[in-house]
Amino acid sequence: MKTISENICHGGTQGVYSHDSTATGGEMTFGLFLPEEAKLGEVPVLWYLSGLTCTHENAMTKAGAQGWAAEQGIALVFPDTSPRGEDVADDEAYDLGKGAGFYVNATQDPWKPHYRMWDYVAEELPALLGREFAIDLERQSITGHSMGGHGALTLAMAHPGRFKSVSAFAPIANPTQSDWGKKQLGAYLGDDTGQWAKHDASLQMTEVGFDGPVLIDQGDSDNFLDLLKPEALAHAMMARRQDGIFRMQKGYDHSYFFISTFMEDHVVFAAEALYA
Amino acid sequence: MKTISENICHGGTQGVYSHDSTATGGEMTFGLFLPEEAKLGEVPVLWYLSGLTCTHENAMTKAGAQGWAAEQGIALVFPDTSPRGEDVADDEAYDLGKGAGFYVNATQDPWKPHYRMWDYVAEELPALLGREFAIDLERQSITGHSMGGHGALTLAMAHPGRFKSVSAFAPIANPTQSDWGKKQLGAYLGDDTGQWAKHDASLQMTEVGFDGPVLIDQGDSDNFLDLLKPEALAHAMMARRQDGIFRMQKGYDHSYFFISTFMEDHVVFAAEALYA
Repeated sequence: MKTISENICHGGTQGVYSHDSTATGGEMTFGLFLPEEAKLGEVPVLWYLSGLTCTHENAMTKAGAQGWAAEQGIALVFPDTSPRGEDVADDEAYDLGKGAGFYVNATQDPWKPHYRMWDYVAEELPALLGREFAIDLERQSITGHSMGGHGALTLAMAHPGRFKSVSAFAPIANPTQSDWGKKQLGAYLGDDTGQWAKHDASLQMTEVGFDGPVLIDQGDSDNFLDLLKPEALAHAMMARRQDGIFRMQKGYDHSYFFISTFMEDHVVFAAEALYA
Repeated sequence: MKTISENICHGGTQGVYSHDSTATGGEMTFGLFLPEEAKLGEVPVLWYLSGLTCTHENAMTKAGAQGWAAEQGIALVFPDTSPRGEDVADDEAYDLGKGAGFYVNATQDPWKPHYRMWDYVAEELPALLGREFAIDLERQSITGHSMGGHGALTLAMAHPGRFKSVSAFAPIANPTQSDWGKKQLGAYLGDDTGQWAKHDASLQMTEVGFDGPVLIDQGDSDNFLDLLKPEALAHAMMARRQDGIFRMQKGYDHSYFFISTFMEDHVVFAAEALYA
């Protein structure tokens, strides 16, 4: 593992690190905020998965999460959204290939060799965090934005017992029924739509649900409402009687101005579950 | 004036606007956060002046100021740091020309025609804000980072009665004695160093001081300490018995991770003066 940078922030350390990933077969970069408490012992961790076109950096610099995490004494991890490097397949579209890993393990060419973001986020990166940093893997929560909200929800539901809470900002909620999903799941996983269901938060909410509290924030002025399909997830949550809250926020759009506005709520929500 | 974008943020509106500037002889862009209270009437305003290489955008997206401003019911304005456009003189160095206006009115070629950021920030932009938005020009405070901290301090001291408070993050504190200053003041204002004094916060603090409270934060792990010369400003403040606080923050550097950490303090500091 290499240290790219470390900056003191809110009494803790905002670091950026890279490492050779076996999951994605290349070098991966991630951001990690450790609160001051991590100098004394292991701290809980909140994962933040980013959306289309993002790297590890966007939320780290624009979401304003570190102050709230410092207040709660929890770490924040900001993974990248896809494999990177010259030998990694890509597409001209912003929503396929680099920056658009969709948190799946690709089974189709040309994506198969590197696009294994599911394994990277679910297995390899947590193991590395537990090994290299003062992070308590028994206390993890997860959140994310847009494609990252999709990742947070699907990963959380697929790993019962692992995450104490899950939340999302404007998640891609029903990708098997959306142009943000059909194209990518088809490309990465192939035409057998049976393979897609694991990666659809609304379907998984209907099938298995989440074994903890759920918080969803969605702006009603989001330009991408037709692609996000929040109504599908809200229906699935409430039909299941999922312990959870779905908030439609008047006037808010899809930007980091929306995320930063409600970040405090999501960090506090996670902290309440992590310290319960 | 043109609206470039408006996003709801913390209940208010983060806007970006452009306008034809007579001061700089070209189109200028600025960011403006208006808290929800601005829908009901005029609100106080806190100016944030940015540092070298920045545009109106950096602090708007990375300083995490809007939440605190919303809590206090005050507007934030984020001006650009120099004139822009193809006909504007520039230099290959990051610290001269575009992105490096140093908040002065240039008197020397080739800078003279456009580099009039002093007049722009002191005269033209406030007049426009008062005309176009629900902003109370009787209640202004000012802050800034690095070159912007220099601008905030020198503008505040040169306009007694205008600003209720001034603060700065890692300001360029003594530019007449620094390579962040001698080069630029020489280029923009010429070799007569008598013209430079107005643009040196430490000299102005010694000569005139500020007619309100002053707050300075400086990280002790700032890479640019030798260029910033905080000790000159601290000495001038305390020699003068200036109403003010100078804080050396252990471990912090020059980045927005430093700024975002202490932004709450600076917004609250301004608000206390604005509502006094």
